[in-house]
Amino acid sequence: MKNLPDFAGLAGLVRERRPLVHHITNDVVNNLTANITLALGASPVMAPCILESPEMVAHAGALVLNIGTLNPDLVKSMKAAGTEAARLGIPVIFDPVGVGATNFRTRVGLEIMRELKITVIRGNAGEVLGLAGAQGAVRGVDSLDSSAGRESFLQEYARKTGAVIAVTGVEDFITDGARWARCSNGHPIMGRVTGTGCGATTAVACFSAAGIPAFDATLAGLVLYALAGEVAGERASGPGSFVPLFIDALADPDSLPWEKVLLETCP
Amino acid sequence: MKNLPDFAGLAGLVRERRPLVHHITNDVVNNLTANITLALGASPVMAPCILESPEMVAHAGALVLNIGTLNPDLVKSMKAAGTEAARLGIPVIFDPVGVGATNFRTRVGLEIMRELKITVIRGNAGEVLGLAGAQGAVRGVDSLDSSAGRESFLQEYARKTGAVIAVTGVEDFITDGARWARCSNGHPIMGRVTGTGCGATTAVACFSAAGIPAFDATLAGLVLYALAGEVAGERASGPGSFVPLFIDALADPDSLPWEKVLLETCP
Amino acid sequence: MKNLPDFAGLAGLVRERRPLVHHITNDVVNNLTANITLALGASPVMAPCILESPEMVAHAGALVLNIGTLNPDLVKSMKAAGTEAARLGIPVIFDPVGVGATNFRTRVGLEIMRELKITVIRGNAGEVLGLAGAQGAVRGVDSLDSSAGRESFLQEYARKTGAVIAVTGVEDFITDGARWARCSNGHPIMGRVTGTGCGATTAVACFSAAGIPAFDATLAGLVLYALAGEVAGERASGPGSFVPLFIDALADPDSLPWEKVLLETCP
Repeated sequence: MKNLPDFAGLAGLVRERRPLVHHITNDVVNNLTANITLALGASPVMAPCILESPEMVAHAGALVLNIGTLNPDLVKSMKAAGTEAARLGIPVIFDPVGVGATNFRTRVGLEIMRELKITVIRGNAGEVLGLAGAQGAVRGVDSLDSSAGRESFLQEYARKTGAVIAVTGVEDFITDGARWARCSNGHPIMGRVTGTGCGATTAVACFSAAGIPAFDATLAGLVLYALAGEVAGERASGPGSFVPLFIDALADPDSLPWEKVLLETCP
Repeated sequence: MKNLPDFAGLAGLVRERRPLVHHITNDVVNNLTANITLALGASPVMAPCILESPEMVAHAGALVLNIGTLNPDLVKSMKAAGTEAARLGIPVIFDPVGVGATNFRTRVGLEIMRELKITVIRGNAGEVLGLAGAQGAVRGVDSLDSSAGRESFLQEYARKTGAVIAVTGVEDFITDGARWARCSNGHPIMGRVTGTGCGATTAVACFSAAGIPAFDATLAGLVLYALAGEVAGERASGPGSFVPLFIDALADPDSLPWEKVLLETCP
Repeated sequence: MKNLPDFAGLAGLVRERRPLVHHITNDVVNNLTANITLALGASPVMAPCILESPEMVAHAGALVLNIGTLNPDLVKSMKAAGTEAARLGIPVIFDPVGVGATNFRTRVGLEIMRELKITVIRGNAGEVLGLAGAQGAVRGVDSLDSSAGRESFLQEYARKTGAVIAVTGVEDFITDGARWARCSNGHPIMGRVTGTGCGATTAVACFSAAGIPAFDATLAGLVLYALAGEVAGERASGPGSFVPLFIDALADPDSLPWEKVLLETCP
């Protein structure tokens, strides 16, 4: 591994710049993702209503669009805020929760990709592959699939959309179409806590909001997230005690065991 | 006590089958109930919008309808999803939060009972008695009452509706009109944590979603829930530290002290 | 310090009377604020829909209006519930989250002040100063400002509105226009946990709901809150572990180190 970003240094940049991260997100994870944002040293705001969501974008360093509990009004608000973000050059991080599970979600996911300029897509394999039109599978909001063997397809999707693509799971795979990285950190218990996927999207958004370029921001966000999850997972006695330990680990990146990062990158 | 279900075995069945549990529920408890679902080894999905809620039902093993923060759109979505669940033979677990506290809630509760096929009703005494038209009392969403002395009335209500009736509180009373059970496990601290009632409904739904018949699923879900609460309550130093300990206990049913179950059943 | 309220005694009054506190609040903090309400010994209800929000007010000892994730329907419901509260003489505690950050929020905040009878306003400096028309600054929902040097302005605003004004932050400043108090307890980690401001509003509401007059209720609620935060902050290893410890501390006011209260009052 060479030419890797200085992850702890980038995490320090987030804390130093303390950017605002605007979330239009789902009702199940808004508290958790707000706390993840704060733990990373950024500042969360959730302003879902279209009467203010575009205006709030102007204060933000990044915009998260998460369709976990979507409805038509929220979709309109996401599109308005996303359009404003593109106009202002603010990165948009898209979490296509459950795309493939219902026609409504799939249609909204495709509309968002077509109508907005998305900087990073972060989802599980089924969601991202479903969005990309691959033969994917989504079961509720849980993926039945992994990115293994789909790397070329995802790289092509990154080139086609101009977005950084991040598929998280047992392994995280990240590509901008040219470069790619694979991170094997994390802990199985993360699959037993709601919102850990949505939280990964938020981590990417926090690094993006600090002005870090999309590929490095995604990589740094997901590596820190997985490493903190690994540390907390080893300390936790179950998925309940995991959550506070995980937030604590995210809030103190300097004491994470960075030497344990398992990362393969190319080039 | 004889012919009791093998509770730990049924909990293992939930983990093995990992059924999807679709919740149309309230904004206060959606994160907690999603985490309870995952702790029990099932998989949660919250898709409240009518444009997808019936479609999502087809992926699910059970549907939770919880009226804690209802509005007309959500009620329409509940009815559409509940109708689809009946068509597909998927159990519907109804939590009549706050019925009796306002005319709107009471009316919606009665409409749901009249228009849908409900498999299990889980509420506190005031809510269930209010729904059943007994002289109940509801104060906000808190019951002022218990099921004590109302057993015959509840059995009659079970026969009339065809639903399993579960009234939880200091004691939990469960009946399908013929059989009944009373469980005395639990811990007083559960009354000082929001969503512990809604979480009990979710536990019942997880067992139902695994294909376990309604009465056994309700009994197993509530006994496991109360026992895990008792264990966590004894370890906790307050209602805040209770929550992570409770989730941990729910996620590890094999290490619960099953010999401490206090259960009276008939026949 | 003399003639101070007996804080532990007032906290005991809340637990003894167990008043219902009706919240029309935001989706990010509703679970946390419900748990804070329960920890303090009061009983939370969240009934956001206008079809029941005014009716629910009649059961409540206080009404919280929090505009953190507002939309036009919620605003109508807040106004209807607030009008009913005024008619019944029930205190209304207003949290002007993010006023100043968008035109919509600022407009709604001013409408609420103009159309309703507000008993207590609790916000950070930027929000309250923005509401009061001072040269304030709000960045997202985070204040860039403090109350220092604005005490006279805030006292004048209290006299003008007839509300108790509470600006919280590193120092909390409370005034009813005649009296004022300044509390320096708390812990920096509270700024890294979402909803700690909204939770302070809830604490004030719990004391108000117990029938304690507005200034004393606000002072007692905020002093207890800051002291519990200080205790939990000293014990926590990060913002994640802070939350359960904080709820535990709020739930056990008798064991708080009341001798550490740092309070300046006048007269």
